[in-house]
Amino acid sequence: MRALLDQVRAGAVDVDSAIDRLKHLPFEDLGFAKVDHHRALRQGIPEVVFGQAKTAEQVLGIVSSLVKRSGNVLVTRASAEMAHQVKGAFTDAEYFPASGALRIWRDRAKLGKGKIALVCAGTGDLPVAEEALVTAEVMGNEVDSISDVGVAGIHRLMSHRAQLMEARVVICCAGMEGALPSVVGGMVAAPVIAVPTSVGYGASFQGLAALLGMLNSCASNVTVVNIDNGFGAGYAASLMNRL
Amino acid sequence: MRALLDQVRAGAVDVDSAIDRLKHLPFEDLGFAKVDHHRALRQGIPEVVFGQAKTAEQVLGIVSSLVKRSGNVLVTRASAEMAHQVKGAFTDAEYFPASGALRIWRDRAKLGKGKIALVCAGTGDLPVAEEALVTAEVMGNEVDSISDVGVAGIHRLMSHRAQLMEARVVICCAGMEGALPSVVGGMVAAPVIAVPTSVGYGASFQGLAALLGMLNSCASNVTVVNIDNGFGAGYAASLMNRL
Amino acid sequence: MRALLDQVRAGAVDVDSAIDRLKHLPFEDLGFAKVDHHRALRQGIPEVVFGQAKTAEQVLGIVSSLVKRSGNVLVTRASAEMAHQVKGAFTDAEYFPASGALRIWRDRAKLGKGKIALVCAGTGDLPVAEEALVTAEVMGNEVDSISDVGVAGIHRLMSHRAQLMEARVVICCAGMEGALPSVVGGMVAAPVIAVPTSVGYGASFQGLAALLGMLNSCASNVTVVNIDNGFGAGYAASLMNRL
Amino acid sequence: MRALLDQVRAGAVDVDSAIDRLKHLPFEDLGFAKVDHHRALRQGIPEVVFGQAKTAEQVLGIVSSLVKRSGNVLVTRASAEMAHQVKGAFTDAEYFPASGALRIWRDRAKLGKGKIALVCAGTGDLPVAEEALVTAEVMGNEVDSISDVGVAGIHRLMSHRAQLMEARVVICCAGMEGALPSVVGGMVAAPVIAVPTSVGYGASFQGLAALLGMLNSCASNVTVVNIDNGFGAGYAASLMNRL
Amino acid sequence: MRALLDQVRAGAVDVDSAIDRLKHLPFEDLGFAKVDHHRALRQGIPEVVFGQAKTAEQVLGIVSSLVKRSGNVLVTRASAEMAHQVKGAFTDAEYFPASGALRIWRDRAKLGKGKIALVCAGTGDLPVAEEALVTAEVMGNEVDSISDVGVAGIHRLMSHRAQLMEARVVICCAGMEGALPSVVGGMVAAPVIAVPTSVGYGASFQGLAALLGMLNSCASNVTVVNIDNGFGAGYAASLMNRL
Amino acid sequence: MRALLDQVRAGAVDVDSAIDRLKHLPFEDLGFAKVDHHRALRQGIPEVVFGQAKTAEQVLGIVSSLVKRSGNVLVTRASAEMAHQVKGAFTDAEYFPASGALRIWRDRAKLGKGKIALVCAGTGDLPVAEEALVTAEVMGNEVDSISDVGVAGIHRLMSHRAQLMEARVVICCAGMEGALPSVVGGMVAAPVIAVPTSVGYGASFQGLAALLGMLNSCASNVTVVNIDNGFGAGYAASLMNRL
Amino acid sequence: MRALLDQVRAGAVDVDSAIDRLKHLPFEDLGFAKVDHHRALRQGIPEVVFGQAKTAEQVLGIVSSLVKRSGNVLVTRASAEMAHQVKGAFTDAEYFPASGALRIWRDRAKLGKGKIALVCAGTGDLPVAEEALVTAEVMGNEVDSISDVGVAGIHRLMSHRAQLMEARVVICCAGMEGALPSVVGGMVAAPVIAVPTSVGYGASFQGLAALLGMLNSCASNVTVVNIDNGFGAGYAASLMNRL
Amino acid sequence: MRALLDQVRAGAVDVDSAIDRLKHLPFEDLGFAKVDHHRALRQGIPEVVFGQAKTAEQVLGIVSSLVKRSGNVLVTRASAEMAHQVKGAFTDAEYFPASGALRIWRDRAKLGKGKIALVCAGTGDLPVAEEALVTAEVMGNEVDSISDVGVAGIHRLMSHRAQLMEARVVICCAGMEGALPSVVGGMVAAPVIAVPTSVGYGASFQGLAALLGMLNSCASNVTVVNIDNGFGAGYAASLMNRL
Repeated sequence: MRALLDQVRAGAVDVDSAIDRLKHLPFEDLGFAKVDHHRALRQGIPEVVFGQAKTAEQVLGIVSSLVKRSGNVLVTRASAEMAHQVKGAFTDAEYFPASGALRIWRDRAKLGKGKIALVCAGTGDLPVAEEALVTAEVMGNEVDSISDVGVAGIHRLMSHRAQLMEARVVICCAGMEGALPSVVGGMVAAPVIAVPTSVGYGASFQGLAALLGMLNSCASNVTVVNIDNGFGAGYAASLMNRL
Repeated sequence: MRALLDQVRAGAVDVDSAIDRLKHLPFEDLGFAKVDHHRALRQGIPEVVFGQAKTAEQVLGIVSSLVKRSGNVLVTRASAEMAHQVKGAFTDAEYFPASGALRIWRDRAKLGKGKIALVCAGTGDLPVAEEALVTAEVMGNEVDSISDVGVAGIHRLMSHRAQLMEARVVICCAGMEGALPSVVGGMVAAPVIAVPTSVGYGASFQGLAALLGMLNSCASNVTVVNIDNGFGAGYAASLMNRL
Repeated sequence: MRALLDQVRAGAVDVDSAIDRLKHLPFEDLGFAKVDHHRALRQGIPEVVFGQAKTAEQVLGIVSSLVKRSGNVLVTRASAEMAHQVKGAFTDAEYFPASGALRIWRDRAKLGKGKIALVCAGTGDLPVAEEALVTAEVMGNEVDSISDVGVAGIHRLMSHRAQLMEARVVICCAGMEGALPSVVGGMVAAPVIAVPTSVGYGASFQGLAALLGMLNSCASNVTVVNIDNGFGAGYAASLMNRL
Repeated sequence: MRALLDQVRAGAVDVDSAIDRLKHLPFEDLGFAKVDHHRALRQGIPEVVFGQAKTAEQVLGIVSSLVKRSGNVLVTRASAEMAHQVKGAFTDAEYFPASGALRIWRDRAKLGKGKIALVCAGTGDLPVAEEALVTAEVMGNEVDSISDVGVAGIHRLMSHRAQLMEARVVICCAGMEGALPSVVGGMVAAPVIAVPTSVGYGASFQGLAALLGMLNSCASNVTVVNIDNGFGAGYAASLMNRL
Repeated sequence: MRALLDQVRAGAVDVDSAIDRLKHLPFEDLGFAKVDHHRALRQGIPEVVFGQAKTAEQVLGIVSSLVKRSGNVLVTRASAEMAHQVKGAFTDAEYFPASGALRIWRDRAKLGKGKIALVCAGTGDLPVAEEALVTAEVMGNEVDSISDVGVAGIHRLMSHRAQLMEARVVICCAGMEGALPSVVGGMVAAPVIAVPTSVGYGASFQGLAALLGMLNSCASNVTVVNIDNGFGAGYAASLMNRL
Repeated sequence: MRALLDQVRAGAVDVDSAIDRLKHLPFEDLGFAKVDHHRALRQGIPEVVFGQAKTAEQVLGIVSSLVKRSGNVLVTRASAEMAHQVKGAFTDAEYFPASGALRIWRDRAKLGKGKIALVCAGTGDLPVAEEALVTAEVMGNEVDSISDVGVAGIHRLMSHRAQLMEARVVICCAGMEGALPSVVGGMVAAPVIAVPTSVGYGASFQGLAALLGMLNSCASNVTVVNIDNGFGAGYAASLMNRL
Repeated sequence: MRALLDQVRAGAVDVDSAIDRLKHLPFEDLGFAKVDHHRALRQGIPEVVFGQAKTAEQVLGIVSSLVKRSGNVLVTRASAEMAHQVKGAFTDAEYFPASGALRIWRDRAKLGKGKIALVCAGTGDLPVAEEALVTAEVMGNEVDSISDVGVAGIHRLMSHRAQLMEARVVICCAGMEGALPSVVGGMVAAPVIAVPTSVGYGASFQGLAALLGMLNSCASNVTVVNIDNGFGAGYAASLMNRL
Repeated sequence: MRALLDQVRAGAVDVDSAIDRLKHLPFEDLGFAKVDHHRALRQGIPEVVFGQAKTAEQVLGIVSSLVKRSGNVLVTRASAEMAHQVKGAFTDAEYFPASGALRIWRDRAKLGKGKIALVCAGTGDLPVAEEALVTAEVMGNEVDSISDVGVAGIHRLMSHRAQLMEARVVICCAGMEGALPSVVGGMVAAPVIAVPTSVGYGASFQGLAALLGMLNSCASNVTVVNIDNGFGAGYAASLMNRL
């Protein structure tokens, strides 16, 4: 583009030709303005790799490439083999086997303006919560975890009122009937991100029951992400916590 | 059968022939023992007519016939026209337009041994709760109604703890995410009958979300009936309250 | 409670008895602390009535009662008859027939810290967007509406980049394939709330296709509310915009 | 709380301050009244652990802790490895491999007031029935098992009329079309708890067909639990049998 | 074809050309052999018109044309207006408003070799049963109707054992849980055609529960037709009864 | 019963007492008439064992017991291990590994009055067809198999017209879109039993697409069995072929 | 842009500033190249309005505006009222009430290079076929319609072989089991566009059965559009016929 | 047929007898005209084998037979074992392990008239795209692959505008929300074939979300094939590219 404009300036290319050629420049050239601006906005957002459909070699390659651009890289749904290879190459990589999260976390600046509360209905939901936790941490948040507070023991949840009300954003992970976000949503004035988990059997239909429950929540401050999508919840909560 | 046995006694029919003939007697003759015995057990259970697929004339005819056998008749899902005709013939018939329940309630003996608590999440669930109430009453129960205690306002529900804990059986009606029975189930040691209602929109799928939520309840004392089946809940609760 | 503590102070009741009696005080008495505190947090949140399952008389009654507590009242899914009755009593009530939103908006303080962008794929999605708009406004937000920017005409959407990137929170309403939030999510760094609408036919299954599409969005900043739940999106976006 | 009241008594804290501080005490302190009272009501209910999402080590740890509080501990969906570890530590533990139930049953008081009939359609349903049986027994019930009485051989079921009519509560386990509870429900006046099982193939959709059949039962005394939830059925039946 | 063969015979067309031209003759010319043969096999099968998606004028036109070819015409799902017009033109036409069947039945030869039993679970299923009855009659069968024998009152069904066992083919219509064909299937050795009906509400999902139940029947002699397809059941039963 | 009647005859028991005692005799005693009669009707029907949910030992035990009563025993969905054990004990047992059918076939009387045509859309459907074949043979039928005649190559199917039109009953196995029974149903006047198979991928949803297609067949002579239920089709076809 | 480049040429703006300003020009300015080019490619494609979610006034306004740009305008799913208003303003507008298509067709250039065959299974599918026909015509195609050729009467379809094989593209509309495209797909070498229709009842689930059948077609030349989407089929077929 | 015509010519068979015998000749004899003509049209289409439900031996046998008729053979969903055996016999066979495609490609004539663009949303979709690529190549097409252009990074897709607009046909593979075909469809005037993939988790329901999204595309030039059906997309695109 600069070359073209230099020629315009020098009178070597007339204005009509220049317009014509500008209109046909490939998008990526013109678009870098957007991309750079975008990147600026995205400061503090780690590079993320979805490990599931890749080989360990592919993951290692991608991580090696990304870590140069950004100190923080997150691989979700990584296998033990992926973790083994990446940790071989990057000794500061951390692997969380329950969720399959794999993290290189070098830039530890706090970017969130408050705490994110991470509430979990049962022990089976912990892997999903772990993925949310790892994500929110690497995106610069302090996370306050509250575990094993299913709605059938409402007093346990109630005893965490103070913690919940302090949070700027709340993430709720629950399987089975997925009722926790409704109760929590009624207790706080903060946005609540509900994560249905596939915990359950029979008519839970791999998390469908929890998903539908959360979408139909009678608490107005609840929004929902995909079943088992702890990463998405951690990510969205992090963006909210930066507001 | 008597005739046959008289002939056996008189020697006019030998034992082998009698055995053969007895084996082929139609079921209904032999079976009355069971039916009668059964009826005895069913004492206090009203005659019930499912109004939905019938004409007003058919309902009037059936009610007129049943009321002779039993003082208590319940028509569920009755139309206004059915109510009009039945009330024309039976001045003590009561009609509940929200639920479509139509009742003749003459034998008001108390058969339940305690109270049934009838808990309702929102005002939209009231017609279903009404059907449960009318059913439980005509089956001889005292019912304690607790309304508008959705889980997103948990403190309202908590303030009814005492009432809930007094009940021998609890019925919970809720639409949308259907989370109420899980919370109530965790608060009481009594059996809880959960009634999903079709209240909601979008991903409630006419009550499917609530139904799945209740089937996946993490409270172990919850059993479930069909969507909008207030009658079934009232009926089952009445049987439990007689135990 | 005061009486009891007076007695403790006066020595008429010993500490052990007092503890015992305090433990059994009904929840509602102790709980008011929470409720009040909660209410304080909820400042600027209007009273909301779900109109769908109520009569016009009920709605008028509830609105009359609520308007005393709070200057701002929102009725969602109100019928024309409800609007007629409420506007008869409150001349400053506004009715939005496309969405059925009915609003009394007296306290017009700006509570949101930035703009909410409200993006809409097609004209059929406008009623849902209207519900979101009316909600976000009454909760004190400035809303920037962008209409008719379906993904099959991506250049129309692209021409709104600047508006989108300025928003602190984005709401995306789309029916049919529900792809808009993914594209918008990739264009902004703000949280995006996706609202599937029931616009479409055949395999849209009343919004299910759009709902599933949004839940599976490859953009990580997208969270989802129920089908046609413009209110929920406006509400959650408002909370985020206050952060 | 005691410290505060001591101060009130001593005049070191005035009544208004005390009220204020009491209102903000964490729930768990105030709430113990409820919990204790609750526990009293729950007498005879075993501690229950859902084994599925846990490690053998976790299960052993939890069981070791629970067995101190209560003589009776039930682990559902326990693996062979869990059973091995728990039986290593507690020689009186029993393992039921078909259902995965693992039980320590020390307090064998009869708490049920009558018999629970446990009816099973086919041999494939036996693991689910076993879970119900083990649960009902450890909760202090006498259980009368009736097996292999599918509805396509109605005479086999009919020959158990007497047993069925003696029961205070009936549990029916059936897969495939799930018709058994309707037939049994019509034969008895007791509450019937229907357990759909995932037995079948093709259009059974892992128990969905049986579940829907049971929810639509034309017998009014039938309530339903989740697919394969023998534990829930045994638990609810036990509560009913104590009434 | 004849012309061609005449030319072959006369030597005006050689064999190779004839083969070539025969191979390209349109299907309908060659195919009539099949059609005529087919029609012969179909003797006694009425002409059938699916009324649903047609206008009254179209139905009258089609019926007028068909009645010339065949004495027996059946219109299924006919509206009152269709019936009015057809009865105006054909005074011997019969209309059955519950099912919408409309019939001209002139050839009343008995073609079935035995009786078809038509069993119906509840009064709501009668319209579907009526369609089956009208179809089976016009196809030359004697039909033995047994009504209101739902599985929750098994003794009523049992009292019809003799009738059921006499039938060469049994049709079972049932909505809700659709359990009737399984019980009937176990009582007879004849083929049973199960017709799920859309009777029910909530989790009956417009007949889906009954359909799934019947497809999973544990009785091996049960085959199934579409929901509410009384016509198909009557038709298939008629073919079987001719064997 | 004989003892009682002897006493009646001898005058030792009066008629009223006898009636009373007869009414309370357990069902199985009175009911044997039905069972025996039933068994007579069922002549030629093999004993059938559903292998899927059993151990090899259980299957061997059941087969050993059944083979005494009846020369013909069929185990469906038997594992290789079951086959090994049964063939060890009964050298004339045949195992069909594709379908898992295991058969002892001693009484080879022809009971069917004509041929059953067994039509199969693709090679993937052959295991289901094999189950139907093995069943129909052991029930005394001659079966004419027509393979690999999918509807996308209609001329292949057309070339089997003669075979199809000769059959008294037709079984059609097809996966994917399940269109074969509609085409075949239009070609023959015999009853057609459609067996959807789980062959396919993606939107075949394990046979659901084929099942729905077959239930909606525009050919009126088609009835349907469960997905992959070759046994049920062979069984029902056998009953029809005896008519 | 021209102004900017004039300034560059004149030396009034330096190259760096120009680059910077070019990068931030709104997309629509830069993008017109694409749009114009696109429009050139789209020559002969009518302006299309989806009538369903609009008022008659809105439709009239949009049509009035579009007709200026393009001689050909198509409104799909237009109501009679829309047709009335548009025909009042544009006397050459045509309305097709069965499908709701409304067309102004002024540029009647033939753009398709061959014929499109439009095949229709039953009379109920005709409205969908009409929408496809009206679309294909207004896009400049000759359409050859073949009606009432359901797969259960395969000889009727076979007699149209020649017509089918002449077509460059085939559209198949079918409801119920949706088998037609598989059979037609096997008969031709042209691309086949399958349109499932919502014709049927019960387990057709508003066209789902036909949709799934078509997606699972064993004919490899079949692609599918949404249920009842005659417009989409006509549109895609037109594009293919221009190739 | 020749023998018959020779006899007609010789006068040994009269014309009427000849007509009668011709009408009953088996379809395959008469039908070869159609088949040959068909085969001519199908020139350049490889023989295709669906590997999934076959043994390696069966596949080798079929391939060996087909390769004689046609130089090009494609096996889809072939296992490594199948590839091993086929490559043992045919050294020029190529195996593509990601998709399981196995190809013998001898006749490499270019039959497509332009390029097919093959667009792929993410790396997980590559196996499905590979199947489409292998198919389109063996059918004589030049394919232009564009990978990793998901809609959440719209600028990446935009930079491929030129490539997309050059293609005569576009294939789009996408999982998760399946939005890519809508965006691409709006960018090009060519037909777009959308292939939903099963990539995703949770509410992607094995590709259902992508499938529904694509069927509901707001771009009119999109048609859809089954989930993961890269072969079908490559096949249909090849036919279009020959037009």
